[in-house]
Amino acid sequence: MLTYSFEEKGPEPLYVYLARCIKNDIISGAILPGEKLPSKRAFAKNLGLSVITIENAYGQLLDEGYLYSVEKSGYYASDVKENIRKKKTPVGEENLVLTGGKTRFLCDFSSNAVEPSLFPFSVWSRLLRDELSKDRDRLMEAPPAGGVYYLREAIASYLKEFRNMDVTPQQIIIGGGTEYLLGLLVQLLGFGKIYAVTDPGFEKIGKIYESCGAACRFLPASEEDTFVRDLQKNNIDVLHVSPSHHYPLGSRIPLSRRYELLSWAEGGDRFLIEDDYDSEMRAEGRPLPTLFSIDAGSRVVYLNTFTKTLASTIRISYMVLPEPLVKAFYDRLSFYACTVSNFEQYTLARFIDEGYFEKHLNRCRTYYKKKREFLQEMLLQSRLGTKGELLQTDAGLHFLLKVHSKKSEERLVKDALEKGVKIVPLSAFYHCKGDGEENVYVLNYSFEGEAALQKGVDVLAEII
Amino acid sequence: MLTYSFEEKGPEPLYVYLARCIKNDIISGAILPGEKLPSKRAFAKNLGLSVITIENAYGQLLDEGYLYSVEKSGYYASDVKENIRKKKTPVGEENLVLTGGKTRFLCDFSSNAVEPSLFPFSVWSRLLRDELSKDRDRLMEAPPAGGVYYLREAIASYLKEFRNMDVTPQQIIIGGGTEYLLGLLVQLLGFGKIYAVTDPGFEKIGKIYESCGAACRFLPASEEDTFVRDLQKNNIDVLHVSPSHHYPLGSRIPLSRRYELLSWAEGGDRFLIEDDYDSEMRAEGRPLPTLFSIDAGSRVVYLNTFTKTLASTIRISYMVLPEPLVKAFYDRLSFYACTVSNFEQYTLARFIDEGYFEKHLNRCRTYYKKKREFLQEMLLQSRLGTKGELLQTDAGLHFLLKVHSKKSEERLVKDALEKGVKIVPLSAFYHCKGDGEENVYVLNYSFEGEAALQKGVDVLAEII
Repeated sequence: MLTYSFEEKGPEPLYVYLARCIKNDIISGAILPGEKLPSKRAFAKNLGLSVITIENAYGQLLDEGYLYSVEKSGYYASDVKENIRKKKTPVGEENLVLTGGKTRFLCDFSSNAVEPSLFPFSVWSRLLRDELSKDRDRLMEAPPAGGVYYLREAIASYLKEFRNMDVTPQQIIIGGGTEYLLGLLVQLLGFGKIYAVTDPGFEKIGKIYESCGAACRFLPASEEDTFVRDLQKNNIDVLHVSPSHHYPLGSRIPLSRRYELLSWAEGGDRFLIEDDYDSEMRAEGRPLPTLFSIDAGSRVVYLNTFTKTLASTIRISYMVLPEPLVKAFYDRLSFYACTVSNFEQYTLARFIDEGYFEKHLNRCRTYYKKKREFLQEMLLQSRLGTKGELLQTDAGLHFLLKVHSKKSEERLVKDALEKGVKIVPLSAFYHCKGDGEENVYVLNYSFEGEAALQKGVDVLAEII
Repeated sequence: MLTYSFEEKGPEPLYVYLARCIKNDIISGAILPGEKLPSKRAFAKNLGLSVITIENAYGQLLDEGYLYSVEKSGYYASDVKENIRKKKTPVGEENLVLTGGKTRFLCDFSSNAVEPSLFPFSVWSRLLRDELSKDRDRLMEAPPAGGVYYLREAIASYLKEFRNMDVTPQQIIIGGGTEYLLGLLVQLLGFGKIYAVTDPGFEKIGKIYESCGAACRFLPASEEDTFVRDLQKNNIDVLHVSPSHHYPLGSRIPLSRRYELLSWAEGGDRFLIEDDYDSEMRAEGRPLPTLFSIDAGSRVVYLNTFTKTLASTIRISYMVLPEPLVKAFYDRLSFYACTVSNFEQYTLARFIDEGYFEKHLNRCRTYYKKKREFLQEMLLQSRLGTKGELLQTDAGLHFLLKVHSKKSEERLVKDALEKGVKIVPLSAFYHCKGDGEENVYVLNYSFEGEAALQKGVDVLAEII
């Protein structure tokens, strides 16, 4: 039977620690897919814990997709690797990617979460404390549907200063994450419209449109002008794009094609959703103007989030609506209460307004630049220097590694995982399976520290 | 031209204060519906403020629906009273109801917000501060789609202890407000289903279903068994109800009818959404078992929120799914990140877990009971003792006042408003206009203090 030592347990609850131990064993393969876990009673006896602790740990793992239960039989380990390979119902995987968490990976290149230690705890705590002691009345006063006005003003000034965008606070709508805002957008733009995302891309975005009841097409990302023809051929009404930084390709849309997209949108009741999610972290090069700022026809909705610049667990995103949609929003959707708590809206507003956000971004950019250079240097100095190739090296919080190896992609992913390193191939981001170049990997470097990255490079160099 | 004194301005920004002054004048009628406001430049000069301050104040009022703008002409006051009477596009109104805010009402019987001063600032601040200094790692770790496990455990224990509900933390899904959770539910249960709410009721609930792309019917609330026949006749698939406390009727569904509803749901692929939104504040009487706890057929989704027990500006609600829907949720919707920030999820979890929530509820219940008794006593001692009748006096944070007056309802609402008292007739909660008894008013007493309530009673007694 499974046995774990509880000596290394920190201040976390027992069940959390136990769940983590089991999770790690499932990921590392120590517990095989389909393997039955001990009964709660027997396991509890064996570990000297209460049945309820085991129950809680199993419960959490069920939640996260690491276990599944069979009625009247018991608990079984899910096929997590299968998920990685097939990119199917990635419940557990996705949590993992988003979480980072304390897994037993030596190095996890799949997480594009920000490094938790970068979160400005002391300033944030001070501002929050200050709000809680000084401005109690405003904390208790429900804001309008778009969010706390002070925060929207702070964002408007920020957008003016750093993205050269002229927007009024009224155009800005605050929400508890980009996903929630996309749901609102479908309600605003219409269920009958045909939405499109690029393939490859964040599969989640397409899923959200579909889950909200809209049709969504996956159009091959392309730097050719065939893309606009594809939009027309497929009768697309709304295109979701990240012009400053495509994930995972890392490319950006050149200015001439931005105008083409705007021209396409002008040709009908069409809209562009400009998802500018990590433009703040863009490493090098002069930024191009946003679609929103060169849109004279009120066809662009601009989306951005603080989950990538502050912490993924602070759920604050915003969208900027063009004027006609502002009116439609207030007419039709202002009965919705803003989903973000006042406490965090005011704290963030002050964080931006008092200049801390700018300092924080500068600090992050410098830090990530150093880390990126370190990782790229390590890669080039290793066997990968001749057996691999770095692509899109200056895009943002990830770049691409093309590996020249006789091993198949599937094999390399598995070999790396067995040595504790998690890499995700570019092909996994394709909705149309089989597309995408073989043996190109998406290396996210934001989450791991230098020591882990070094170990990751060592393993990759060894297995190719 | 309008002139305001800025002597009484508190620490709030100038534009916020100015917006409030204008708002109050619109509500009181000092600025008439359709009246043009001064141009920004002229107004700024007159008040000795910058144009940008005026712009911000006008902007906020546009947002809140108190003003509308006419291109190349200027800003005009909206017909706020018209909104109250016609219950039409209640943008401003709704903000007002939700907000409470510092309006110039002597007494506002329309707000069902909790009294802001009841919020447990010191405990909440201490727990939050503690989280921020001690448990930074877990604050940065993204929770699964359902929310932070510790909070879901705390809620499960709470539901066991106070509602005698046996649920696992896995069944609990945390979200940024009930409205957001209803959106998820439509995605989970299906767009093709026909939803129903009771008439009268919270019009917002029906709006949400419709806005999310589902069909919604408004069925006459009735204590007769005709209600179930109505459900069948209208081919309803999903019924949204508040069995412990109907808003605004104040009635509760007796046990025998609860079984009828469950039996109806069992008769097809049907569901009951049990919105238990203010059961904690229920004044008197033994609570009946929830639909969820007597549902053996997995047909009930239980909904509750902390916006009514803590503060409307802390956006945390939850739903409890029956087992089959738990699986469906994780299979199909777990790609959504939880919309509530970890900071608040952990703070709330500790607030519940360490017994503060129970103490807080007891304190609120005692406080509101005293206030309710005070208000009812005042009403009975006034002319309303003979000219009026109190109904549903023990329901929750409101009760009904039936007035025997020769004046029309419209007249009474207007007379009250002119004297600074806001009352909302029951008829305003009917989707089918013209329904509902004349001259019955919904008196919410949670928001105002005793002094304001006394003034409110004096005015009502005077005008009838």
